[in-house]
Amino acid sequence: MVRPAVGAGAGHRLVRRRGTRAKERETAIRAAALRIFRRKGYHAASMQEIADAVGLNKGSLYYYISSKEELLVRLFEGRAEQVLGEIDAAASRSGSPQQRLHAVVRAYVLGVLRNLDSVHVYLREEHSLPRAALEQVRRTNQAMRDHFERAIVDGMRSGDFGESDPKLATLALLGTCTWVHRWYRPGGRLTETAVADDFAERAVRMLRP
Amino acid sequence: MVRPAVGAGAGHRLVRRRGTRAKERETAIRAAALRIFRRKGYHAASMQEIADAVGLNKGSLYYYISSKEELLVRLFEGRAEQVLGEIDAAASRSGSPQQRLHAVVRAYVLGVLRNLDSVHVYLREEHSLPRAALEQVRRTNQAMRDHFERAIVDGMRSGDFGESDPKLATLALLGTCTWVHRWYRPGGRLTETAVADDFAERAVRMLRP
Repeated sequence: MVRPAVGAGAGHRLVRRRGTRAKERETAIRAAALRIFRRKGYHAASMQEIADAVGLNKGSLYYYISSKEELLVRLFEGRAEQVLGEIDAAASRSGSPQQRLHAVVRAYVLGVLRNLDSVHVYLREEHSLPRAALEQVRRTNQAMRDHFERAIVDGMRSGDFGESDPKLATLALLGTCTWVHRWYRPGGRLTETAVADDFAERAVRMLRP
Repeated sequence: MVRPAVGAGAGHRLVRRRGTRAKERETAIRAAALRIFRRKGYHAASMQEIADAVGLNKGSLYYYISSKEELLVRLFEGRAEQVLGEIDAAASRSGSPQQRLHAVVRAYVLGVLRNLDSVHVYLREEHSLPRAALEQVRRTNQAMRDHFERAIVDGMRSGDFGESDPKLATLALLGTCTWVHRWYRPGGRLTETAVADDFAERAVRMLRP
């Protein structure tokens, strides 16, 4: 009775090890694809280059991923949802509309700064995404915009903000906050949190009565 | 003496007519390319589609343009310089730093709004531009940024603005102003000048002491 049990255990461990190695490979493939898509653009990048970057031959790459399009879709999987989760958490903290807007803007800017390459590739390759994936990201983006707008409208009602067009104010703030993906260089003069804090204060300042 | 002169005159007119027709064709080709690049992306677009859109066969298209890359470069030719000229003019008007920033932001936003498709294609296809063309556009963009920063620094000195980081303030404003290319829909709720005026006022408000 002992040997088969040990054998089964060893078998499980082997499957687990293989599973772990496959997961690591997939992570490496996504990271390489993101880098190459960012540098050359999605259309100009080839599966051969991605395979080379992770030390696989092209045939083996297709064991992990069925197409370049699937790779593009999976680059964004979960990222926008994670950032939205952080914005949800920021928005649900108690406090004045000013404090809530501050927290929402801060969470959003940090979300962009922590996903610089994927934000860049998404904004550039949106038109290359299949419809279902595009709609998913757009729904998530809309939910983020709603958080901005809700905090602004609440602040208008309470008199914290002297805004007259909450939709336009939302777009103005989202522009400032999303644009960081074009100029922020990690390791430069400002840390991620320094930029996020500054932009959160700036947002509140822009809306003062 | 009369006939040869008339003949030469008629010849000139013919050349002029041909020149005009060629110019119109080139304009139509650029407009079609811009539309198709915007919709499908530069890499996915084919010269055949562009030829079809202007009712030429592909061979004739190559009479006007030597390659898809040349077409991409020529899409941006002169546009950024024209907007820079308008910003130069806005900046050189006398007035307080607040008035100057207002005028610079307004001219920049109008420049983006009047070139929606080419701003979109440029930001997406920057990496596809040949080095010389890219450097040219970047120099022009840098000159625009300098106008923003100069007005902000002047306002800090005069006490008009309560800013502490003029570089970061410039990037925040440029984000707001450039991002309009992603959400503005011509013929919608707001005219171009309504958005430009609102964003100019918003910029000044953000920098109030």
